[in-house]
Amino acid sequence: MIVSALLTSVGINLALCILFFTLYSVLRKQPGNIEVYAPRLVAEGKARRRGGEFNIEDLLPSPGWVQRAWQPSEDDLLASCGLDAVVFMRIFIFSLRVFTVAGIIGVFVLVPVNYLGDQLSDIDFADIPSKSLDLFSISNVKDGSNRLWVHFSAAYLISAVVCYLLYAEFKYISLKRLAYYSASSPQPHHFTILVRGIPAHDGSSVGDAVENFFTEYHPSTYLSHVVVRRTRKLRDLMTDAENLYKRLAHLKSRPHTSEHSRRSGFIGMFRQNGDLVRQYSKKLEDLETNLRIEQSDASLRRVEVPAAFVCFRSRYGAAAALHIQQSVNPTQWVTEQAPEPRDIYWPFFSASFMQRWVSKLVVYVASFILTIIFLLPVAIVQALTNLDQLETMFPPLVGILEITVVSQVITGYLPSLILHLFLSFVPPIMKLFSTMQGFIALSEIEKSACNKMLWFTIWNIFFANVLAGSISSRLEIFYDPKTIPSKLAVLVPAQLLNVYMPKYETGGKFWPIVHNSTIFSLILMQAIAFGIFSLKKLPVASSLILPLPVLTLLFNDYCRKRFLPVFHAYPAETLIKKDREDQNDPSLNEFLDGVVNTYRDPALMPRNHSQDRQEWNSPLLSHAY
Amino acid sequence: MIVSALLTSVGINLALCILFFTLYSVLRKQPGNIEVYAPRLVAEGKARRRGGEFNIEDLLPSPGWVQRAWQPSEDDLLASCGLDAVVFMRIFIFSLRVFTVAGIIGVFVLVPVNYLGDQLSDIDFADIPSKSLDLFSISNVKDGSNRLWVHFSAAYLISAVVCYLLYAEFKYISLKRLAYYSASSPQPHHFTILVRGIPAHDGSSVGDAVENFFTEYHPSTYLSHVVVRRTRKLRDLMTDAENLYKRLAHLKSRPHTSEHSRRSGFIGMFRQNGDLVRQYSKKLEDLETNLRIEQSDASLRRVEVPAAFVCFRSRYGAAAALHIQQSVNPTQWVTEQAPEPRDIYWPFFSASFMQRWVSKLVVYVASFILTIIFLLPVAIVQALTNLDQLETMFPPLVGILEITVVSQVITGYLPSLILHLFLSFVPPIMKLFSTMQGFIALSEIEKSACNKMLWFTIWNIFFANVLAGSISSRLEIFYDPKTIPSKLAVLVPAQLLNVYMPKYETGGKFWPIVHNSTIFSLILMQAIAFGIFSLKKLPVASSLILPLPVLTLLFNDYCRKRFLPVFHAYPAETLIKKDREDQNDPSLNEFLDGVVNTYRDPALMPRNHSQDRQEWNSPLLSHAY
Repeated sequence: MIVSALLTSVGINLALCILFFTLYSVLRKQPGNIEVYAPRLVAEGKARRRGGEFNIEDLLPSPGWVQRAWQPSEDDLLASCGLDAVVFMRIFIFSLRVFTVAGIIGVFVLVPVNYLGDQLSDIDFADIPSKSLDLFSISNVKDGSNRLWVHFSAAYLISAVVCYLLYAEFKYISLKRLAYYSASSPQPHHFTILVRGIPAHDGSSVGDAVENFFTEYHPSTYLSHVVVRRTRKLRDLMTDAENLYKRLAHLKSRPHTSEHSRRSGFIGMFRQNGDLVRQYSKKLEDLETNLRIEQSDASLRRVEVPAAFVCFRSRYGAAAALHIQQSVNPTQWVTEQAPEPRDIYWPFFSASFMQRWVSKLVVYVASFILTIIFLLPVAIVQALTNLDQLETMFPPLVGILEITVVSQVITGYLPSLILHLFLSFVPPIMKLFSTMQGFIALSEIEKSACNKMLWFTIWNIFFANVLAGSISSRLEIFYDPKTIPSKLAVLVPAQLLNVYMPKYETGGKFWPIVHNSTIFSLILMQAIAFGIFSLKKLPVASSLILPLPVLTLLFNDYCRKRFLPVFHAYPAETLIKKDREDQNDPSLNEFLDGVVNTYRDPALMPRNHSQDRQEWNSPLLSHAY
Repeated sequence: MIVSALLTSVGINLALCILFFTLYSVLRKQPGNIEVYAPRLVAEGKARRRGGEFNIEDLLPSPGWVQRAWQPSEDDLLASCGLDAVVFMRIFIFSLRVFTVAGIIGVFVLVPVNYLGDQLSDIDFADIPSKSLDLFSISNVKDGSNRLWVHFSAAYLISAVVCYLLYAEFKYISLKRLAYYSASSPQPHHFTILVRGIPAHDGSSVGDAVENFFTEYHPSTYLSHVVVRRTRKLRDLMTDAENLYKRLAHLKSRPHTSEHSRRSGFIGMFRQNGDLVRQYSKKLEDLETNLRIEQSDASLRRVEVPAAFVCFRSRYGAAAALHIQQSVNPTQWVTEQAPEPRDIYWPFFSASFMQRWVSKLVVYVASFILTIIFLLPVAIVQALTNLDQLETMFPPLVGILEITVVSQVITGYLPSLILHLFLSFVPPIMKLFSTMQGFIALSEIEKSACNKMLWFTIWNIFFANVLAGSISSRLEIFYDPKTIPSKLAVLVPAQLLNVYMPKYETGGKFWPIVHNSTIFSLILMQAIAFGIFSLKKLPVASSLILPLPVLTLLFNDYCRKRFLPVFHAYPAETLIKKDREDQNDPSLNEFLDGVVNTYRDPALMPRNHSQDRQEWNSPLLSHAY
């Protein structure tokens, strides 16, 4: 790639950026678009569709929203969106900081040092645009030159700064996590654990087994339980009923709405509206009868899963049952933390053990194949950055490719566009894979999808590119890995506040993923530095870089010991303190009475399809994460 | 190696075996040797030195002891030596079973199949002794021959049998472990945990911090505690005092023993015995005064370590404190299982954190270097099995090496003798390394040394040999890895009962090491089988062997889930049941009063050197493990 191609790419991106910024600034002010740009406010009743008065200001782009977007403090964010949103913002800011440090060192120190090297050719300041980018890379520093020590120092400096930032962030987020827990009102999942592998002996039900076991071994803390049931059939019936209800509501509302009257007359040519309504009503009644039969006790007994949500009187009681192996047979009475009730992925419980096992295996294989197949678009991109190769492969293109602008667009902008186009298909696929993998919580599914994406990205963008590329692309990597975390952060707060409604709250459990991938990136950078110093015939620097990964791994180990346990479970100190605070709270008993009901499968709740359903009011409301 | 060399080796070993068996049979019957062959019985007062009457039968070898050695049942062993001895015997029997199965398949199926192959040369039944052993190996089976499927089936069969044996053994031992715990009388380590990283704030002592923390968060179960102290100085003083006391006792006893009177007269020429006694007594008194000063409270306060043994009123109380993270800062109030009092390695507590960290690193590096350096004797052995190489290296030897017997001894017997000679130096070194590594329990030290030895053996005997050897040695490996467990078992029970006195009881925690190394050996065997089938041009067999390691690893995973947790901690069910049994036992309170004293550092116990010390009575008493 040559410099002018890079500049073309920068120019195109900048122009697109300004265009989208203007469009957003104008469109968000249009009264009719409020449901698109602030669905959460509409859903919460904080904003309404304004009347249609015309206003010239609405058509002029204004940047005021940018300032407002950065205004909400961390506490505002915490109050309205929970800790996950705060952690998300911290990840974003952390990435910016890392990028700034690496950028400053790269642009103001390393690039000048590289450019003043003379390994590749003599300096000709007049014709910079047509020079290869390699001139700005470490390739241009003379082998064995003392200038390489600048790069050496940069590797140490960047590692030190990133580790410091990681430490500060990990400490801050783990303290926030504990404070958030301490400040939270009693939550059902604080008092509940999920128990699996419940041995139900012949005759007795799973429920009886749970009741007997916990009154025997946890008499003072055990409260109640809900047995999990296989509800796939119920779910299917409910989806049918819902679809039918929607169609019925649509049909019924038609004669009254004037807009549709003309069309309704058109349909009326084929069938009487009344007939249809009667037919659908009958079908819906049948379905609802079926549903009630399926929801009855006798049917439910048949589909018991040997798992139950068990509730305790105190947080410490739940923790004791969670952390101590319960049964003599470790595959029975297996305890794990219960997710938040809204975070549970109920369909999972319907799959049999064998189904889960097979689908897990299939998912691994499929993810692997997807990662490998993706080398195809990467190869195309590689070909585009290399015009000569392209001309050899497609001889008719020679003429076109010789036009300067075309060649610059092709080598500079097109490759990244194509790559991003292909990349955009991957996250939904990875999420689908994770859904099939058998997690019981939506947050776990998304965390797993996130991890899959990370490894996919690392493999494809870094390894595949590096192994196939020149030393120049190798050098890009040298500065690139540190931006991985920024791939996780692509939103600004205004959006979090106005658009997203948190679906669950993990209490910042996403942070360790960022920490781990940053450490991985550092090690990768150090390994590449080691390789480059060897290639550049500066063996002393190669050897002296070796302590760096060792130190980085020791630092990582310390962080894992010091902070990570807080992300897995809350300490006894915190739990007991909160339990004692609650002892004097008269409302706790009321709360405890209701806890068990929050863990009932929504499919088992009685439904009345003539009631209004809130979800339909806000079809555009997105969910965070 | 040729067949006759192998036979020479077998012959020499057999002859030595018979010689040692005869010597043992005769020597053990000599009345004077009872302290050598049954020191435990002497120490426990169950056997005494018999009078010196002459008996002709004492000089004839008799094999009766072999039968008696196998007589004690598992229950006898359990009662007199604890569960570890039983597990040890089970490991021995397990190894024998594996070896028998592999041996039968190898000798009666695979060796004939190999010998009837014709890859290497035509069969000449007349001259078997001078044939190379390769003729009996898979090298002799024709490439791509269908006979290789016999080997293929053997790989599957052996894997299945070994996995079945492992499963049965793991299940048996884990049930035994639980039963042993259930049947045991209250033991101090059931009620005690070790707490480290105790934050002592300015002014207050570690003891106060422990008292405050546990009365605050575990008021109903907390019993008492002992703070650990640095006792290196005390230990040194005590060693000096003991040595001095021994010399004094020796001096004092001299005038009364008639045997020594002549010598004592000889020494008397240089110095009066009385003078020496007075001088030593004075020194001993000074030392004991120093000891008492060091043992006083004021001095002890100075050397407090931020660690304590904390005792609880119930087993479940101890487990709750053990399994739940206690402090908001995970590096403070770190809990772990307390070892048995007799199992504690006290000197460890004297080392500072930095010392421990550095010595751990040094140990890793040293173990690595030892493993590498050991390639030298392995290389020598390699050279010996290859006579031609030896003749090239040392031309003067040519004449000697051409004598048949010499060459057969050199290629058949000498290599393994040299290797075993060098190998015998390794275990003490590895144990020394493990001692430096910072374990708080002797059992942990020995487990770690055991693991080091295993990896050392695997690396040196298998990899180094295989990588340097021919396909024949590769094939030996094919049948060899399964014997690793037998390397762990080198004793017979009679010895356990008469010679060894258990120093600690891990409740069979050694078994998982055997399980893991057996699984590793199976995978190694399967990998080698894969390689051999590829080399032998039977790609279908190569591919069809691939499910085998996958199945083996899945089996291993299942075993780890199903049985391993029981080896880490006892389940709530067991703990609570035992606690309830004890509730009605009036002697429990008495026991609990004494628990904390069992965890006092022996260096802090008041000593009186004029008392008899039991250890000196049984200098030959070995300790098991």
